[in-house]
Amino acid sequence: MKLLDIVPVTAQGLISEDMERYINKYLSADTVMDITQITKGTPSIESEFDEAMCAPDIIDHCIRAEKEGYEGVFINCFGDPGVRAARERVDIPVFGGFEPVMHLALGTADQIGIVTVLPNVLPMIRGEIAKARLEGRVACVRSVGIPVLDLSDHDKLCGALLDESIKAIKEDGAQTIVLGCTAMVDVAETVEAGLHEAGYEIPVLEAARSAVMLLELNVKMGLKQSRITYMPVPEK
Amino acid sequence: MKLLDIVPVTAQGLISEDMERYINKYLSADTVMDITQITKGTPSIESEFDEAMCAPDIIDHCIRAEKEGYEGVFINCFGDPGVRAARERVDIPVFGGFEPVMHLALGTADQIGIVTVLPNVLPMIRGEIAKARLEGRVACVRSVGIPVLDLSDHDKLCGALLDESIKAIKEDGAQTIVLGCTAMVDVAETVEAGLHEAGYEIPVLEAARSAVMLLELNVKMGLKQSRITYMPVPEK
Amino acid sequence: MKLLDIVPVTAQGLISEDMERYINKYLSADTVMDITQITKGTPSIESEFDEAMCAPDIIDHCIRAEKEGYEGVFINCFGDPGVRAARERVDIPVFGGFEPVMHLALGTADQIGIVTVLPNVLPMIRGEIAKARLEGRVACVRSVGIPVLDLSDHDKLCGALLDESIKAIKEDGAQTIVLGCTAMVDVAETVEAGLHEAGYEIPVLEAARSAVMLLELNVKMGLKQSRITYMPVPEK
Amino acid sequence: MKLLDIVPVTAQGLISEDMERYINKYLSADTVMDITQITKGTPSIESEFDEAMCAPDIIDHCIRAEKEGYEGVFINCFGDPGVRAARERVDIPVFGGFEPVMHLALGTADQIGIVTVLPNVLPMIRGEIAKARLEGRVACVRSVGIPVLDLSDHDKLCGALLDESIKAIKEDGAQTIVLGCTAMVDVAETVEAGLHEAGYEIPVLEAARSAVMLLELNVKMGLKQSRITYMPVPEK
Amino acid sequence: MKLLDIVPVTAQGLISEDMERYINKYLSADTVMDITQITKGTPSIESEFDEAMCAPDIIDHCIRAEKEGYEGVFINCFGDPGVRAARERVDIPVFGGFEPVMHLALGTADQIGIVTVLPNVLPMIRGEIAKARLEGRVACVRSVGIPVLDLSDHDKLCGALLDESIKAIKEDGAQTIVLGCTAMVDVAETVEAGLHEAGYEIPVLEAARSAVMLLELNVKMGLKQSRITYMPVPEK
Amino acid sequence: MKLLDIVPVTAQGLISEDMERYINKYLSADTVMDITQITKGTPSIESEFDEAMCAPDIIDHCIRAEKEGYEGVFINCFGDPGVRAARERVDIPVFGGFEPVMHLALGTADQIGIVTVLPNVLPMIRGEIAKARLEGRVACVRSVGIPVLDLSDHDKLCGALLDESIKAIKEDGAQTIVLGCTAMVDVAETVEAGLHEAGYEIPVLEAARSAVMLLELNVKMGLKQSRITYMPVPEK
Repeated sequence: MKLLDIVPVTAQGLISEDMERYINKYLSADTVMDITQITKGTPSIESEFDEAMCAPDIIDHCIRAEKEGYEGVFINCFGDPGVRAARERVDIPVFGGFEPVMHLALGTADQIGIVTVLPNVLPMIRGEIAKARLEGRVACVRSVGIPVLDLSDHDKLCGALLDESIKAIKEDGAQTIVLGCTAMVDVAETVEAGLHEAGYEIPVLEAARSAVMLLELNVKMGLKQSRITYMPVPEK
Repeated sequence: MKLLDIVPVTAQGLISEDMERYINKYLSADTVMDITQITKGTPSIESEFDEAMCAPDIIDHCIRAEKEGYEGVFINCFGDPGVRAARERVDIPVFGGFEPVMHLALGTADQIGIVTVLPNVLPMIRGEIAKARLEGRVACVRSVGIPVLDLSDHDKLCGALLDESIKAIKEDGAQTIVLGCTAMVDVAETVEAGLHEAGYEIPVLEAARSAVMLLELNVKMGLKQSRITYMPVPEK
Repeated sequence: MKLLDIVPVTAQGLISEDMERYINKYLSADTVMDITQITKGTPSIESEFDEAMCAPDIIDHCIRAEKEGYEGVFINCFGDPGVRAARERVDIPVFGGFEPVMHLALGTADQIGIVTVLPNVLPMIRGEIAKARLEGRVACVRSVGIPVLDLSDHDKLCGALLDESIKAIKEDGAQTIVLGCTAMVDVAETVEAGLHEAGYEIPVLEAARSAVMLLELNVKMGLKQSRITYMPVPEK
Repeated sequence: MKLLDIVPVTAQGLISEDMERYINKYLSADTVMDITQITKGTPSIESEFDEAMCAPDIIDHCIRAEKEGYEGVFINCFGDPGVRAARERVDIPVFGGFEPVMHLALGTADQIGIVTVLPNVLPMIRGEIAKARLEGRVACVRSVGIPVLDLSDHDKLCGALLDESIKAIKEDGAQTIVLGCTAMVDVAETVEAGLHEAGYEIPVLEAARSAVMLLELNVKMGLKQSRITYMPVPEK
Repeated sequence: MKLLDIVPVTAQGLISEDMERYINKYLSADTVMDITQITKGTPSIESEFDEAMCAPDIIDHCIRAEKEGYEGVFINCFGDPGVRAARERVDIPVFGGFEPVMHLALGTADQIGIVTVLPNVLPMIRGEIAKARLEGRVACVRSVGIPVLDLSDHDKLCGALLDESIKAIKEDGAQTIVLGCTAMVDVAETVEAGLHEAGYEIPVLEAARSAVMLLELNVKMGLKQSRITYMPVPEK
Repeated sequence: MKLLDIVPVTAQGLISEDMERYINKYLSADTVMDITQITKGTPSIESEFDEAMCAPDIIDHCIRAEKEGYEGVFINCFGDPGVRAARERVDIPVFGGFEPVMHLALGTADQIGIVTVLPNVLPMIRGEIAKARLEGRVACVRSVGIPVLDLSDHDKLCGALLDESIKAIKEDGAQTIVLGCTAMVDVAETVEAGLHEAGYEIPVLEAARSAVMLLELNVKMGLKQSRITYMPVPEK
C-alpha cells in the first residue's frame, strides 16, 4: 500500500528521520508512506489565518497524490486543514490529524482531554469539536504555550504536557489524553509514564501515529468518503 | 463611514448596478460602500474546495482594506469564507453572509429555515450551524438546485424559493426564512409576498442586505472582534 | 422614525437625562426615541415575581404605542419581560434587553460572559438562555451583588463589573462581556478599558444601547415578528 | 392535607363537579383539594399574552393560599403560568400542569409526545421544554386545533386526540402521550383504549391528574422548592 | 397495594428494620412493601461488573414478583440494574433508585447535584444521565469515597455528604442535592440541616424513599411502561 | 497477535466458516482470531432482557481470555453487551460491535444511518447513542423487521437493507450506512452496490468486520482502556 504524508507547512526540518521512523513503525511491512511538503503557505499552522493560507497547496498535493497512485493521504496537522475540500476532489481516503485520533480516543474513555500548542488555536479546535458534534465527549482543550517550531525540546515539551494533562484530569475530568498537534511525536510514552507515576493509568494518544494507522486501516477496508457529505465539485 | 464589499469569487458580472443600489438603499446617507473582487480563486463558491481556493485572496483583500482606511469589510458569500482568518489579521469588523443574517433572524422567530442554492453546500452550511452552536434554532437547510451563476433568472429563482420555503414551514417547522446565498438579491419581497398569499405571515431575510446593515451598525457602535476568540497571528 | 422606550418598573428617577443622551447618541438623526414608564408593577425587576407583576402594564403600553404611531418598542429590561406576549399583540418590532445584545455579542466572539446585578436573577437569565437554545455560546452568568436601585454609584459598579468580568474570562472562558442589566449604562467603556489594562482586548456590550440600535435597524429593514412564532391572540 | 386548585382563568363553568370528582379520586382519603378561581385575567390561556395577563392574580392567590393554611397549590394550566414567580414568594410546593406530568411521563418511556389545544401555544410549550432542558425526551408537540372553551365535546376531543396521538407515534416516534392542556380531563382512558385498538400499548397521561398526585406526594415527603433556584424576592 | 423491594446484592444485613421502617413511613396505610434479596451476584454494586453479575437474578425476582401478585417492584439500587430488562418482561411498574429521585428532584430546582459512594461508579452514573438526556439538568456527580458496605457509620457519612454537597453548590452550581446510593438512608434530614446552617435552603432527596413513593403513585394511577419503549421479548 | 471472538449468545451455527473467513480476510497474516461461544444465556440478543441474561457469561469469557493469553477480545454483538463491565476486569482491549463501527463511520460522513434487525432493539441502540453522546451524528436508526436467527436468507436481507438504507438517505438525511447487527455479514458490498445503482455513492459498514479491524489496530498500538473511565472493581 502506498500512502502519502503531506507536511502542510513550509518550515524546513520539521519531520526528522527519527520522527518518520517512529510514526511508521506500526504500519504493515508492505505499506510505504512517502513524505512531501507544500511550498506555498506559512511556516507553521498556529491560527485560522495560517490554515487558510496553506489550504490551496495542500489540496493541490492531494489531487496530485491521487494521480500518482497513492491510495491514501495524511495531511499532517491537527487542524485538519483542507481535509474536507480535498475529500470533495479525490476518491482516496484523506485524513488530517484531528478526526482519527479523536475517533480512536473515543474507544478508550468517556471524556477526552486535548493538550495543544498555543492558546491561539483553542477557538479553532473547539470549533472543530463543535462541528464534529463531539462536545459531549471532550472534557477540555488546553495548551502548553509552546509554538510548533519550538517543540523539538522534548524535555520541556514532556514536562509541560504532563502538567497540563494532570490539570485536564483533576480540574476538567479528562479520562484519556489526546496530544493536539501532529508535531508532538515520540512523547506519548513519556507523558503516559509520568501520568502513571502520578497515579493515573490512562492512555495518551498521538495524533500523527493515530492518523497513519487509521488511514492504513481505511485503505485496507476500502472505505471511502460519502459522496453525499462530500459531493463532487460542480463544473462551472 | 467607508465600508468595503469584497466579491470573493472570480466570475465577472455577478453584482449588477441594480443589485448594488438595492443592497445599499437602507444604509445611512454618509455610508459609502465600495466594491472590489478577488482575482485568484474559483468563479463561484459552491463547495468546500471553492471556499478553500478563494480564501487566501479574500484575506489579502481584507488586510489591504484596513490599510486603505476602510472601517468595515463584508465578504460577500453565505459560507463566511476567510472570515475567521481575516478577523485575526485586522482590527476592523469583518462579516460574511452567514452570521449577520442568522443573528437578525434569531430576533424574528424561534426556528429558522434556510434555503440555499445547491445540495453540494448543505453539509458545509450545516457544519457552520453546528460550529455556531445554533442547531437548536435551525429547522432545516434546503436547496433550490440552482447554481450560483444561474441565479439571474428571478422568476425561476423566486418560484423555487417559494416552493422550498413552504416545505420548510410545513414539513420542517420553519418560522422565518433565511435566503442562504448572498447572490439571492432583490427576491425577498417576492418570496415574502408569495408566502403571504399561501397564508404564512413570516419574514424572509436576505443575507447580503442583512450583512451590510449589521456591519454598519457594528462600526457605528465601535464593536470589534474579541482578541481571545481571534488572537493576533503569532510571529514566526 | 419614532421609537418608544418603555421603562418597565415603577421606581422614579431611573433614567436620567444623561443616560438618555448616552443611549441615543448612536441613533440616526431622524430617529426619535420617546420614553414612557409603567405605573402598575414593582419598583425594579429582580425576580420572576417582579417580572410577572410588571408584565401586564408593559404589554398595555406596547399596544398603546402601536396605536400612537410608534414604529418600534424597547422594553427597557434585560429579562425581556412581556416581550413575547407583546409581539403577539402588535405588528411593530418589540425588543427587550436580552435578545439584541446577545445577538450582537454572537458576532464578536464564540463564548459570551454575562455579568448581571443580583444572584436572584441568575436562574431566570439561565432559563432565558436555555429557551433561546444559546447555552452553547454562553460561558457563564455572574452577578455583582448590587441591586438595580443602587447602580448609580458608577465607581463601585465599574469596579465590581471589572472583577466579575476578569473571573468570567479566566475561570469560565468568556471571550466577550455582556452587561446583564439595561440599567448598567455608560459603564462599558470603563470596564473595557479596565480589561485592556488587565491584558484582555475584548468587547463589553451594553444591553440598552444594543437594543435601541438593533431596534432601529429592524424598523429600517421592515423586519417583523414571525406570525408562526407569535400567532395573533385568538378571540374568545 | 389541604391543597388548593387555582383555576387561572376567568371563564365560568370550566371545572364541573364531575371533573373535580374525577381528578380527586386517586388522592388519599384525608386530602382535601379546594378550588378557587382568579378574577383578573383572560377567559382562557391560549397565548403568551393570556398567560402574562393572568399571572399577577394567580400569584396573589398562591400567596393567600399559604396564609390560609394550604399545604400545596396546583395552578391548573399546562403552561405553568406564574409557577416560578409564586415559588419565590411562598414556602409551600407550587405546581402547574406542565412539570408534573412531564416528570411522570419520563418514568414510562424514552420519548414523549405532547398533544395540546391550539397551534398558538406550540412555541410557548416548546419554549417550556427547552427551558426545562427536556428536548432530548420530547418527540413532538402537536395540537388538535380545538380552543380550550370548546373542549367539552368529549367525542370530538377524543377523536382528535386519538388522530394526533397516532401521528405522534408513527411520524414522530412518540412512545408515551401527554395531554397538553389541564382541561383535557376524563379522556385519557378513551384515548388509551383507542391506541390499544390501533395496536399501540402506551400510556396516555392527563396533566391535571398527574399534577394533583405529584403535588400530594411532594407535600407528604416535605419536599420544597430550592431557595437557590427560587430565591426570596429582595426587599426594595 | 402490595409492593416488593428487591435488594439486588448478596451482602447480608444491608437493610435493617430501622431503615425499613424509615423508608415505609410515608407510604399509605394499606400499602404493604415486602423485602426480598437476590442470592446470585456480588455483595454490593460498585461497578459496571457488579451490576452485570447481579442483573439476571434481579430480573428473575421481578418476573416472580409479578406472578406472586405484587403490583410494583423497587430494585433497591441507584444504578437501576436490570430495570429496563425487567420492564420488557413484566406488566407491573418497575423502578430502580435513579429515575424516581431524579424526576422528583426536577420538580424542586433547575440544577441537580448528585453525591454518591465511590469514584468507581461516576462514569456509570454519568452514562445513565446521558442516556436519560438529563445532562442539562445535572450540575455534577460527586463521590464521598466510602464503599457501600461502610455506609453504616452515619456520622462519618453525613459529614462527608455535607462536605461534598457544599462543594456541589459552591463549585458546580447545584441547587438541589440527590443522594446517589439507595443505601444512604435516614441521612437526608441531617444533611439538609447542615446545609441550612451553612446558609443553603435546598432539598436533599433520598433515592430509596423517593422510589417507593413514586412507585406507589404509579401503581395508584395505573401507569405502566410504554410497550414501544419496552417491547415484549420476542419468542425464539 | 492472538484475538478472541466471543459469540455472546447460545444458538448454534450462527458463525459459519464462510463468515469467519470473510471477517478475518483483512486481518494481518500473523493475527489469529479464535472463536468461542457462551453457554449460559439466550439464543440471540434482541432485547434488553437478552443482553442482561448473557452478560455474566460473556464477562467470564473475557476474564478467561486474558488469562489464556489473548491480547484482545471482540464481543460479537452490536449492543456491546458486557463491554464496559469486562473493561473494568481485564487489561486487554475489549470491543463489542457498536463502538468500533460507529467510530469508523464518523470518518466517512457527517450523518450516520443505522439499519438493524428488529424494532425491539431500537430504544436500546438509541440509548447507546445517547450514552455515547453521538446523537448529533446519527440521522436515524431503522430496522428491517427480520429476527437475528433468520438473517441467513441473504437475498431477503439485502433487499430489506437496501430499502431501509434508501429511506434512511432520503427521509432522514443519512450519508453513510452502518449495519446494526454483527450477524449481518458479507452483505455490505451488495447493499453498497444497490445504493450505487440507486444513485447514492456512500459507504456501507459492517459492524463485525469493523470491530475486528479496529481491535487489531488497538492491540498493535498498545491502546488500553482508561482506568479513570473503567476503574478496577473494588475488593469487598
